[in-house]
Amino acid sequence: MFAPVYLDWNATTPLDPVVRDAMLPWLDGRFGNASSRHEYGRQARAALDEARAKVAAAVGAHATEVVFTSGGSEANNLFVKGAAALMKPAMIAISAIEHPCVREPAKQLRRADWTVREIAVDRAGLIKRTDWQAVLAAKPALVSVMLANNETGVLQDVATLAHEAKAIGAWFHTDAVQALGKIDVDFRALGVNAMTLSAHKIGGPLGAGALVLDKRVELAPLVAGGGQERGLRSGTENVAAIVGFGVACERAVARIGDEAARLAALRDHLEAGLAQHGMRIFSAGAPRLPNTVFFAADGLDGETLVAKLDRAGFACASGSACSSANPEPSHTLLAMGVDREVARGAVRVSLGRDTRQADVDGFLASFRQLANELSNLTAMAAQP
Amino acid sequence: MFAPVYLDWNATTPLDPVVRDAMLPWLDGRFGNASSRHEYGRQARAALDEARAKVAAAVGAHATEVVFTSGGSEANNLFVKGAAALMKPAMIAISAIEHPCVREPAKQLRRADWTVREIAVDRAGLIKRTDWQAVLAAKPALVSVMLANNETGVLQDVATLAHEAKAIGAWFHTDAVQALGKIDVDFRALGVNAMTLSAHKIGGPLGAGALVLDKRVELAPLVAGGGQERGLRSGTENVAAIVGFGVACERAVARIGDEAARLAALRDHLEAGLAQHGMRIFSAGAPRLPNTVFFAADGLDGETLVAKLDRAGFACASGSACSSANPEPSHTLLAMGVDREVARGAVRVSLGRDTRQADVDGFLASFRQLANELSNLTAMAAQP
Ligand SMILES: Cc1ncc(COP(=O)(O)O)c(C=O)c1O
Ligand SMILES: Cc1ncc(COP(=O)(O)O)c(C=O)c1O
Repeated sequence: MFAPVYLDWNATTPLDPVVRDAMLPWLDGRFGNASSRHEYGRQARAALDEARAKVAAAVGAHATEVVFTSGGSEANNLFVKGAAALMKPAMIAISAIEHPCVREPAKQLRRADWTVREIAVDRAGLIKRTDWQAVLAAKPALVSVMLANNETGVLQDVATLAHEAKAIGAWFHTDAVQALGKIDVDFRALGVNAMTLSAHKIGGPLGAGALVLDKRVELAPLVAGGGQERGLRSGTENVAAIVGFGVACERAVARIGDEAARLAALRDHLEAGLAQHGMRIFSAGAPRLPNTVFFAADGLDGETLVAKLDRAGFACASGSACSSANPEPSHTLLAMGVDREVARGAVRVSLGRDTRQADVDGFLASFRQLANELSNLTAMAAQP
Repeated sequence: MFAPVYLDWNATTPLDPVVRDAMLPWLDGRFGNASSRHEYGRQARAALDEARAKVAAAVGAHATEVVFTSGGSEANNLFVKGAAALMKPAMIAISAIEHPCVREPAKQLRRADWTVREIAVDRAGLIKRTDWQAVLAAKPALVSVMLANNETGVLQDVATLAHEAKAIGAWFHTDAVQALGKIDVDFRALGVNAMTLSAHKIGGPLGAGALVLDKRVELAPLVAGGGQERGLRSGTENVAAIVGFGVACERAVARIGDEAARLAALRDHLEAGLAQHGMRIFSAGAPRLPNTVFFAADGLDGETLVAKLDRAGFACASGSACSSANPEPSHTLLAMGVDREVARGAVRVSLGRDTRQADVDGFLASFRQLANELSNLTAMAAQP
């Protein structure tokens, strides 16, 4: 198999080998249904308990506050629809740069007579204070603002926003999928009522995520049935994936100290190279994740560039990784007031634990060559 | 690890080793997000396509009719809530013996002004024709009747029911989770509009299921977001689990010919032994799955018996496996008109591909001894 250098860690991550080793017994002789009252079931239940404690510890929450789901998308939908289902129709406010798995369920609430209010961001991608004040004045019942954006890596001041939202009586949710394992994430310090996590973004497996939930928030389950996860998420628990999620949390969080600095240095090196080549780095001035570089140059087509980079042996993303089946320019960039034309040229490089200096240098060399070729072509096409 | 003989195959199954081998590469170097437009993503996408074709082939459907979910519970919820969300409030009719992951979402519809009508079953657990006619006259918009019951193993005549329901303009759904891999299941021959499958009941992994869906049925997604699965199920696809599901379908269905007869013979042997000991076998006279024995004796407590059997080295279930966190007697048995007292004594033994004659004989020997002990205790307690 041709294996390009992987520079798309915000889309998904390779499984941490230690995580895989922890999962393998659960794909072998240990296979019980955690609801079963026999030895197999009890072993599965104990493994879930242990994983729950690990996930909770990673974000400074109580084990009883962790509701396991199949992933981040489900956890976001569970909060948005689950909370709304038990309230009278009201307003939900979400930032203009939320992931589609917050935006789409919010839009679905319109059928139940809810209003969806987008909170504007500035050119750097940070919530605009003025618009935020206007939102608070409109008294939303639910607010969702992501901790770290998947495209730009921008970090919002969630602690302040949550504090202010709770003061007007709103439930505050944050999507921390991209933050976990890259920066410190503390459920209590952030003061949010609910927080979404996903295992496969932190060296864990696909198939597990969590909604960390303040128990004062009542939710209707999205998946109702056998009553697993305190009635908030029915379905036979995916033991192997949840075990992997627990170990991945433990490892990713323990690693942050060293990794954040290492990745930030690589990122700075990459950005310096791109800037030399005239690339515009989005959100460069804002607090950001250490691993994410989102950039563009006028006149270049991001899709084409990413396809060429792929053939040259570098796997990165154009636009949003999670909706890259969708050829529309990034809604995050549009919300930041970036021109559609510039947005079309956007490329995201996201680094991770296997990324080395040589990978970044190799990427920069290929990028320079390909970008030159593309500009020449564009220049030729533009000639009279 | 103490490893009792596993006789709880309706709760979950050990992973088929061939399935595991097919999954392992996806827990290793092959880890792409199927939406990513680079080599890793394309490989993941191709694997999903292949698995989709296999799942479709296993039930005689088109690959484009398969919507992958995280499991059976989610697929049932997706149908019930997803279909209702796009209709005016109406009636949903479900059999009185549906799994909680059909019953609970149906009940949730009441908040949206839907009526839930249960379809009565007879003493054998089969839909009562008279009540079914009354249900049809009431013109439900949605109908859900399971193909095989998880507790008794009873098989409904879904083809006839679906035909009649569709004649009055209802969408007909069947939960085929327990039928798949045990009897032939054909989406077209059954003539249903939607069908639920789950991987972990057929030697596949936890974390994958499917709603097989006639495209005339419009559904609102339960998990909305990035637009995966034709917009019907967002979230990064669990490639390893879906690959395993595909292989598990292929293998489980190929095996049915030999396995059904082998398991039925073991089942008959088991039932003969239980009958000798005065046990009542539920649904004995009805068409049933070849692997499932649900029985009870007056005066015995199922929970206690199952705990004793577990210590004696035999893992089986009391009441419904999937809600056995719940100490209430089986709602399936109550719907069949079984006394609460008798229902409390219910024990389910479900056989699978690793079950051998020696396992059944060993179970019968232990069972006889334990049941005798329990009856003596009960008799002593009853003495004046
Ligand atoms: C910010 C953010 N939220 C949520 C998700 C969805 O998580 P999952 O893929 O686990 O459904 C993603 C990525 O897909 C993401 O980047
Ligand atoms: C008949 C039936 N339907 C649905 C389910 C739920 O499937 P899953 O465990 O994949 O959510 C089960 C078992 O749990 C079942 O027996």
